[in-house]
Amino acid sequence: MPAKPGSTQIGFVGLGIMGAPMAQHLLKAGFSLKVYNRSDRPRVQQVIDAGGQRVATPRAAAEGSDVIITIVTDTPDVESVILGEDGIIHSVSKGATVIDMSTISPRVTQEIAAILGKQGVHMLDAPVSGGDVGAQNATLSIMVGGEQKVFDDCLPVFEAMGKNINLIGGNGAGQTTKACNQIAVSVANLAMAEALMLAAASDLDVGKVVDAISGGAAGSWQLTNLGPRILKGDFAPGFMVRLQQKDLKLVLAAANDVKLALPGVSLAHQYFNIVERLGGADEGTQALIKAYEAQAGKQARAS
Amino acid sequence: MPAKPGSTQIGFVGLGIMGAPMAQHLLKAGFSLKVYNRSDRPRVQQVIDAGGQRVATPRAAAEGSDVIITIVTDTPDVESVILGEDGIIHSVSKGATVIDMSTISPRVTQEIAAILGKQGVHMLDAPVSGGDVGAQNATLSIMVGGEQKVFDDCLPVFEAMGKNINLIGGNGAGQTTKACNQIAVSVANLAMAEALMLAAASDLDVGKVVDAISGGAAGSWQLTNLGPRILKGDFAPGFMVRLQQKDLKLVLAAANDVKLALPGVSLAHQYFNIVERLGGADEGTQALIKAYEAQAGKQARAS
Repeated sequence: MPAKPGSTQIGFVGLGIMGAPMAQHLLKAGFSLKVYNRSDRPRVQQVIDAGGQRVATPRAAAEGSDVIITIVTDTPDVESVILGEDGIIHSVSKGATVIDMSTISPRVTQEIAAILGKQGVHMLDAPVSGGDVGAQNATLSIMVGGEQKVFDDCLPVFEAMGKNINLIGGNGAGQTTKACNQIAVSVANLAMAEALMLAAASDLDVGKVVDAISGGAAGSWQLTNLGPRILKGDFAPGFMVRLQQKDLKLVLAAANDVKLALPGVSLAHQYFNIVERLGGADEGTQALIKAYEAQAGKQARAS
Repeated sequence: MPAKPGSTQIGFVGLGIMGAPMAQHLLKAGFSLKVYNRSDRPRVQQVIDAGGQRVATPRAAAEGSDVIITIVTDTPDVESVILGEDGIIHSVSKGATVIDMSTISPRVTQEIAAILGKQGVHMLDAPVSGGDVGAQNATLSIMVGGEQKVFDDCLPVFEAMGKNINLIGGNGAGQTTKACNQIAVSVANLAMAEALMLAAASDLDVGKVVDAISGGAAGSWQLTNLGPRILKGDFAPGFMVRLQQKDLKLVLAAANDVKLALPGVSLAHQYFNIVERLGGADEGTQALIKAYEAQAGKQARAS
């Protein structure tokens, strides 16, 4: 049955920097929400103030819900909130749908979908891109894996939170697509860092070089959006290095699962290790340039 | 003195796939051209038919010219047409300007500029991007190194051939900027290839993945423009693998000159070696995917 504001009950697990604004958009769209978060935070209170009913466990969030959304950090967290002691699996109704919007392992996603399936529970994997700004503005891209009918039924839920919503294939396909996304993101970041560093090491005006090359075949979202931040020395996080690293570990594990060699993204992962070693784990991914700056003894930012 | 159609005489050396349409745009803008090309080709005849006066040597093209443009393949070719036996240097007038629009070594560019400078001849390095389509439509990006006054005087010449025209710095700065451009282009290509291959190796619909990720932070010119060609199995050259490889050799030499480690672009260069080994030297740069396909025993293109 298609989800419908006013009648569909949603359980929402994980009110983090992404989950909290997403939950608020669902409330604003008219869905009833039972929310769970393991810790107290001001943003949890904001969701309650907006009409969310707080419950004490993921199991309680799933009780009587038609749709249960999980958006937590990593694979073990998803396993815990769905399959763990107080997990969703112990109360979820037959015919309900669990939508995991975390970024986790495609393989584990398929395993969880199979376990839920045996209980007559549907699952969609629906990781997002667009960052906290996308979550706040309900402009997230949502990459979905699962059955067409289940996807269609959940579309009103997705549409309350995002814009570019695509069913790619069966369970796990959303997570694999997110992995592909993170490959393209991180290696394009590497492309930018190396281009800027040759300019800097050659004593060119790096800003002029960025302006000259951004509009053509060298152009990318990374160059246009993160290049200017590097020039200003602005390393505040849009997306944090340590979360990028978590995702790249998933990418390399997914590649390993199908025995695919991906030397470019592997290199990006190693260079982010240098950045973390230099203390940049909580900075934005544009801090990748710092690995090159450290090697070159020269800064890319405008003086 | 600013270049002016009707009064400025231009010598034009190199009527290749780029040079021929560029020369025709200069003729159309009203400049007089003495043209030199080492071989006979239909496109050389087209330039003559459009009003170019053919001469037998680069030296003859430079004689009496205010501006001499060279656009040939590689560093030794530029050295030959400017400094060689029948080279430009033997006839060029004091106060004239040599504009090299080839993509060559920044270091050799500076050496040639110094030699010409001793004879009172100006030089600009002004490599282009935008490919044969950009040359035909006069929409090339032009990255210039040299003196501001010389650049200003030559602007009408550049404006007849391109759109995005930038003076970056002194002699060599145009070539270094082109090297930065080629870093960003080739590593963004690597980003696309690895993203598409994980999708293919995981048996996803690669076209759906490209559509889902192109609009966000994973987006790049390479993904938007070359991705769909890969899906169609179209490997016709926009820009040929062997020319990309020639440029990447220049990039790595320029990085070596300033002792900068660029592992990403170095990796792209090695993967293009695989493509050349597989017989793809004359294909478009989107053939980079073939190196991955060969390793994975799986094709990324839509079936």
